[in-house]
Amino acid sequence: MPPGSLVHIGKKHTEKPVFSWFSYNAANVSQQNPVTVDELLALPRISGEIVWLDMIGVNHVDIIETIGQSFNLHPLVMEDICNTEQRPKFEEFSGYTFFTLKRSEYTHLPSYVSLTQVSIVFSPDFILTFREEASPIFDTIRKRLLSGASRARTKKSDFLVYLIIDSIVDSYFDIVEKISDEIETIEEKMIIDTDGRFVSMFQRLKRNLTYLLKALYPLREALSKLEKRDNPLLEIQTIPYYRDIYDHTVHLIESIENQRDILSGSMDVYLSSLNNRMNSIMKVLTIIATVFIPLSFFASVYGMNFRYFPELQWRYGYLYFWILIIVILIIMMFHFKKKKWM
Amino acid sequence: MPPGSLVHIGKKHTEKPVFSWFSYNAANVSQQNPVTVDELLALPRISGEIVWLDMIGVNHVDIIETIGQSFNLHPLVMEDICNTEQRPKFEEFSGYTFFTLKRSEYTHLPSYVSLTQVSIVFSPDFILTFREEASPIFDTIRKRLLSGASRARTKKSDFLVYLIIDSIVDSYFDIVEKISDEIETIEEKMIIDTDGRFVSMFQRLKRNLTYLLKALYPLREALSKLEKRDNPLLEIQTIPYYRDIYDHTVHLIESIENQRDILSGSMDVYLSSLNNRMNSIMKVLTIIATVFIPLSFFASVYGMNFRYFPELQWRYGYLYFWILIIVILIIMMFHFKKKKWM
Amino acid sequence: MPPGSLVHIGKKHTEKPVFSWFSYNAANVSQQNPVTVDELLALPRISGEIVWLDMIGVNHVDIIETIGQSFNLHPLVMEDICNTEQRPKFEEFSGYTFFTLKRSEYTHLPSYVSLTQVSIVFSPDFILTFREEASPIFDTIRKRLLSGASRARTKKSDFLVYLIIDSIVDSYFDIVEKISDEIETIEEKMIIDTDGRFVSMFQRLKRNLTYLLKALYPLREALSKLEKRDNPLLEIQTIPYYRDIYDHTVHLIESIENQRDILSGSMDVYLSSLNNRMNSIMKVLTIIATVFIPLSFFASVYGMNFRYFPELQWRYGYLYFWILIIVILIIMMFHFKKKKWM
Amino acid sequence: MPPGSLVHIGKKHTEKPVFSWFSYNAANVSQQNPVTVDELLALPRISGEIVWLDMIGVNHVDIIETIGQSFNLHPLVMEDICNTEQRPKFEEFSGYTFFTLKRSEYTHLPSYVSLTQVSIVFSPDFILTFREEASPIFDTIRKRLLSGASRARTKKSDFLVYLIIDSIVDSYFDIVEKISDEIETIEEKMIIDTDGRFVSMFQRLKRNLTYLLKALYPLREALSKLEKRDNPLLEIQTIPYYRDIYDHTVHLIESIENQRDILSGSMDVYLSSLNNRMNSIMKVLTIIATVFIPLSFFASVYGMNFRYFPELQWRYGYLYFWILIIVILIIMMFHFKKKKWM
Amino acid sequence: MPPGSLVHIGKKHTEKPVFSWFSYNAANVSQQNPVTVDELLALPRISGEIVWLDMIGVNHVDIIETIGQSFNLHPLVMEDICNTEQRPKFEEFSGYTFFTLKRSEYTHLPSYVSLTQVSIVFSPDFILTFREEASPIFDTIRKRLLSGASRARTKKSDFLVYLIIDSIVDSYFDIVEKISDEIETIEEKMIIDTDGRFVSMFQRLKRNLTYLLKALYPLREALSKLEKRDNPLLEIQTIPYYRDIYDHTVHLIESIENQRDILSGSMDVYLSSLNNRMNSIMKVLTIIATVFIPLSFFASVYGMNFRYFPELQWRYGYLYFWILIIVILIIMMFHFKKKKWM
Repeated sequence: MPPGSLVHIGKKHTEKPVFSWFSYNAANVSQQNPVTVDELLALPRISGEIVWLDMIGVNHVDIIETIGQSFNLHPLVMEDICNTEQRPKFEEFSGYTFFTLKRSEYTHLPSYVSLTQVSIVFSPDFILTFREEASPIFDTIRKRLLSGASRARTKKSDFLVYLIIDSIVDSYFDIVEKISDEIETIEEKMIIDTDGRFVSMFQRLKRNLTYLLKALYPLREALSKLEKRDNPLLEIQTIPYYRDIYDHTVHLIESIENQRDILSGSMDVYLSSLNNRMNSIMKVLTIIATVFIPLSFFASVYGMNFRYFPELQWRYGYLYFWILIIVILIIMMFHFKKKKWM
Repeated sequence: MPPGSLVHIGKKHTEKPVFSWFSYNAANVSQQNPVTVDELLALPRISGEIVWLDMIGVNHVDIIETIGQSFNLHPLVMEDICNTEQRPKFEEFSGYTFFTLKRSEYTHLPSYVSLTQVSIVFSPDFILTFREEASPIFDTIRKRLLSGASRARTKKSDFLVYLIIDSIVDSYFDIVEKISDEIETIEEKMIIDTDGRFVSMFQRLKRNLTYLLKALYPLREALSKLEKRDNPLLEIQTIPYYRDIYDHTVHLIESIENQRDILSGSMDVYLSSLNNRMNSIMKVLTIIATVFIPLSFFASVYGMNFRYFPELQWRYGYLYFWILIIVILIIMMFHFKKKKWM
Repeated sequence: MPPGSLVHIGKKHTEKPVFSWFSYNAANVSQQNPVTVDELLALPRISGEIVWLDMIGVNHVDIIETIGQSFNLHPLVMEDICNTEQRPKFEEFSGYTFFTLKRSEYTHLPSYVSLTQVSIVFSPDFILTFREEASPIFDTIRKRLLSGASRARTKKSDFLVYLIIDSIVDSYFDIVEKISDEIETIEEKMIIDTDGRFVSMFQRLKRNLTYLLKALYPLREALSKLEKRDNPLLEIQTIPYYRDIYDHTVHLIESIENQRDILSGSMDVYLSSLNNRMNSIMKVLTIIATVFIPLSFFASVYGMNFRYFPELQWRYGYLYFWILIIVILIIMMFHFKKKKWM
Repeated sequence: MPPGSLVHIGKKHTEKPVFSWFSYNAANVSQQNPVTVDELLALPRISGEIVWLDMIGVNHVDIIETIGQSFNLHPLVMEDICNTEQRPKFEEFSGYTFFTLKRSEYTHLPSYVSLTQVSIVFSPDFILTFREEASPIFDTIRKRLLSGASRARTKKSDFLVYLIIDSIVDSYFDIVEKISDEIETIEEKMIIDTDGRFVSMFQRLKRNLTYLLKALYPLREALSKLEKRDNPLLEIQTIPYYRDIYDHTVHLIESIENQRDILSGSMDVYLSSLNNRMNSIMKVLTIIATVFIPLSFFASVYGMNFRYFPELQWRYGYLYFWILIIVILIIMMFHFKKKKWM
Repeated sequence: MPPGSLVHIGKKHTEKPVFSWFSYNAANVSQQNPVTVDELLALPRISGEIVWLDMIGVNHVDIIETIGQSFNLHPLVMEDICNTEQRPKFEEFSGYTFFTLKRSEYTHLPSYVSLTQVSIVFSPDFILTFREEASPIFDTIRKRLLSGASRARTKKSDFLVYLIIDSIVDSYFDIVEKISDEIETIEEKMIIDTDGRFVSMFQRLKRNLTYLLKALYPLREALSKLEKRDNPLLEIQTIPYYRDIYDHTVHLIESIENQRDILSGSMDVYLSSLNNRMNSIMKVLTIIATVFIPLSFFASVYGMNFRYFPELQWRYGYLYFWILIIVILIIMMFHFKKKKWM
């Protein structure tokens, strides 16, 4: 394939693309749900209103190309939208800004984190969001936009973009909490475990945390860039809000790194307790064997068939034998106790 | 919940909020303890005097909102005050500065560090402190302020803020000392321990130290920013004092990191001593078994019932048997000694 | 050898050098395949057309020297072209830019990554590429250049250089995927393995990943420099494309680092599962031995030949013996079960 | 305690403070040893001469306060002088510079590093040094100053400060050498050790090295600041000398970090050799047991009392038994040798 | 010793100093080999010619002091020349530049890296090199200088300095290759090893690599400074050559770090294979013991002397015994096979 030709990279999530079209300003708001891309492009763009186009299904590369051309997007931006293995990043182009990040979902049993991509292109006039997969993530924003309760109505497009990014970043907090609960559950269960089956559980959780960090490190970087540069598309009043998302991301990263440390620590305790259990079992068993092997030797001795064997003829030979055994036992026990082996 | 609506995040510590209102300058000082927020807002703000309002109970979001609006705070600042899982940070807004950090407390048996949040908003005219939980932490400052002994009376508001932050940072030193003592106690006890139960103690202490660092790293960052930037709210004479707190924080961090290293080192010694004990036990037991198993073999041999068995008929057969056994024993002992196995 | 004299460092891959000569602009394109260096140098350089000379076989130092002198290259550039152990780097000289990087290939069974060097020298008028080894890597670019489908025809030389670098960087993605598959295969197989033979496999894969990173870290550095500096040879419209390769390289590095972490994690799980298996085997075997050793002692006792041995004369002595044995067995089993040793 | 009140933090080393007063320039030098602080303050300060006041005993906070006020020191400087748990640091105040660092001493058996604090305040007119503990560290400097051999006589105060800091930094080199010798001694001894008692020795040495680094890292930082900033109190000719101390500190840090790595490496070798010894012992013992257990089985078989037992009646049954035993032994030995278990 | 007095630190390598004096420009070149320092200082310095003085034997501090004073060197430079434990560094003084680095040599069996110091002082007029030890390292440079083949004849002094540094840096490549070979040899041998004796070999190699890095990290730093600063002594045309040495140093460091990682990886494989061997031996031995201990029990049972012992009287009792034994054996084998213990 020549570079520059659009390819979808990643899992195919949707059969048909889903569009949602908003046009709003402080006074008016209207929502359309076009079914085909032709219907979509036929929608009028009213001057003075901000357009928010949300599309689900980034595997439809031809549709993304059509939309991209209609909004004058750079070929590389379209490529990045279709490539769901893209790292979160932020890039400025003349006239618009491109921002891509990951939404995360978590399933329990087995513990599994999935990341899907959300790409955002915004200018003062329009906001385009491209999502890999259908999810109710934007429903609250939409409802409040329509009802007029949202502060976004009276603000520039960058505020709605803030709301969008914020709703995505917030979804990570749930996951961190769920994983935290799972770690606690494992920590409780592992105390009574003896067969080492939690090692792979620890590893799976650790891998999930690393997976989340892989999405969050570049996000932090992108948000830091977004906040620092003199982005002409960002209003001075919106900057504290973006800084707030940045702080949340940093907090998330620290929490996850902390959980990873806790996991490592727990696993060390776990492995060492497994080892201690094993050792104490082996010790007891070895002590039993060690005690009886010498005793067996003496029993064997008196089972020998020598013709001239004085002890065997003694009146209390058998009694003396047991006395010998018990004396040996007592000496051994005493010695083991003294050395704290028992 | 839409972003921007105030939510309390964290544990609920207080049933009712507690207010404390100071108004002071070099000449005058007055203290009020309003019970309701209405009483609080009715208090007059005297020009030329600095107001210090201290509130305990950040779960009362509506009261914080009312106070915040009365002092013209940004919605995000109010959000941060109510979110007790906030990282320590410093932010400048037009007209006031926002600073949030953690106070720490330590309980022994089991070793446990708790962090509660203190948020500070200050301008030349007012200082607002919001605390998660009641504690006698500001009592000394208040007493000295009332008695006139405090240098803060003759200085700008930034000096009182310095005293507040300093009293919080100083509380960490106690904890570090207590944990240090606990480590020493464990190090003494672990020498005679054999069952590996200190591993989880080490881990708990380590987790506490990490928890403290989690509060101190961003604090260092915030203090470094506070000191470096040309903050118009910071007097040139106060800067060395803030630099001093910064130095204390760096010192704290180094001490804690050092303790963590010591803990790791001690745990290595501990695990390796457990292992050595175990190994030396196993070795002794194995030696006993190894010595007696061949001896038992010979005893069994002379217990066989072969019809034609010359040794059994010998006059001194039994004596020779014991001589054989003792010779084998001596050879083995000699060999083990030579190889330093015993 | 005096410094400055050209030496080939590395493996000798080709017997004879292979040349390929392109001359193109928006209107015209022509390809030549000269066999000797004299034929090559006799080719006319048409003003207004960009020349792309591709040479395979960097062990022919004399030919590289001749070509280098004909294009006025610095002696150190020629040295770097011949030294295939060169780190990827980017250097600007007056009039041209030098860029060297590694192409990677992967063979399975045993897992093995090989890196070969590609050096690129380009100015507005010419592009020189020197390759260590023949490979079909530039075939698509050439075909599209000849057919006129390539956007490079209408652009400056820096765009063709972008296409060349991009095709090389893209080849790494395949390898990362292949290694990823291999890791998954090993993870599936290792669950049922008992003899520890995957340790060296893990190490070989890890070494391969490290080898790839060794080529990619300096490449990232070079691309970052290339993109950031005000390189007069880079058109403003081409910069986003170079930034795109840079992003790909960063993504590659993160993927590989992630795989390395996964490998380490898997190896930990593997080693700990090997250990657990071993321990559980030893435990069962030790339990069997421990149970039978005391029993054997009792059997030996009743094999003794004491003259006066009351039990032996009992009517049900033998029966009582078995009852004793079974009672001991039951007590032991009960005890082991209670202590969760079985 | 209110902030700003002087407190001594650390061990109390001296009963009575010791003062030493020098006044010198190129032409004159005079030494006084006042006993009380009143005598000290009564000493005349001759214009054109540099005063060097050395005080031992930082637990006398009232005296330090009196001296500090007489030289116009900032309250925080006095606080830092009295706090011996202060990190090494460098701070400029208007008119004077404050520098605090640690002197180190080493005792062998058990290996123990102690750090005591030296604080230096200097201006063009005076140098104040405050030491925690009496030591002969400044004796050479004093002798040369009195005899006129010291270059410091003809230079500004910053050169004498250089000599003071240099003498302190040089004392670390001895310690590094002593620890290095101790490591070598341990490395020689540990080869023949079997009971793992060197683990805690390694840890103690490591802790000492970490302790030294804790004093040296901030010292490097302080010296780097001192050298880089345009300190008006530092003559341009003295700067290379301070850069020299800086280089020494960097060299020290690298040596200590290197020793720490060597220690870790040695400990790995040590632990692995302990483990190997243990394993080889266990292996030999297990082989002996394994060989004799099956042999004992056969001996037991022929000790059975079955009525119809053909072998027991054979003429050469006993001989055949020994042949069987020897054949089994030979097969086992052969097998073990082949598998390299012996 | 007072600071500033010259002391030799390090091993004493030479009895008598060796001098070599070159004076050259594009037209002329002359070599002198003065025996004493007086002869050396009497040599005329011809204007328009560059002087290169090479001295072997830095333990002759008085001679270095004499030469240093004759070339107006700073006392600290002379100190650094005599201190062979100096870190590689680069320093500019007014009129000349000081550069010190380490030459490395490698001996095999046992693997051992030695570093000796080479210090270079150069100005447009002269180049002074001071070496710790005699070695043929500069022979090629000298020969080519005399024969006129060297490009240095037509260039400024900085080019000859480049040739000198380059020849020293190149010597590291040999060592890296030799160590690389040694690692491969060990990796081949360790596969069939069972007694863990390679651990200390790995450690020795690792220590050597760390030792090399200790010389190379500051060298990289020094070269980076040398290249970046606007050094008036460096011609603009020479800079690419210095950048080239810098690149070589970076490449060396990466190779060595890579070798260190490979060593660590190999050691992990080695330790884990030792462990696996040990475990598999123990497992087999334990299985044999476990199988025969219950069998012995049954043999002992039928060796008991109970008067009323029905089985002993049976016609085929002995046969049944063997059937019992074989059945137990088969069940055990079957069970062990099923559980993959064999």
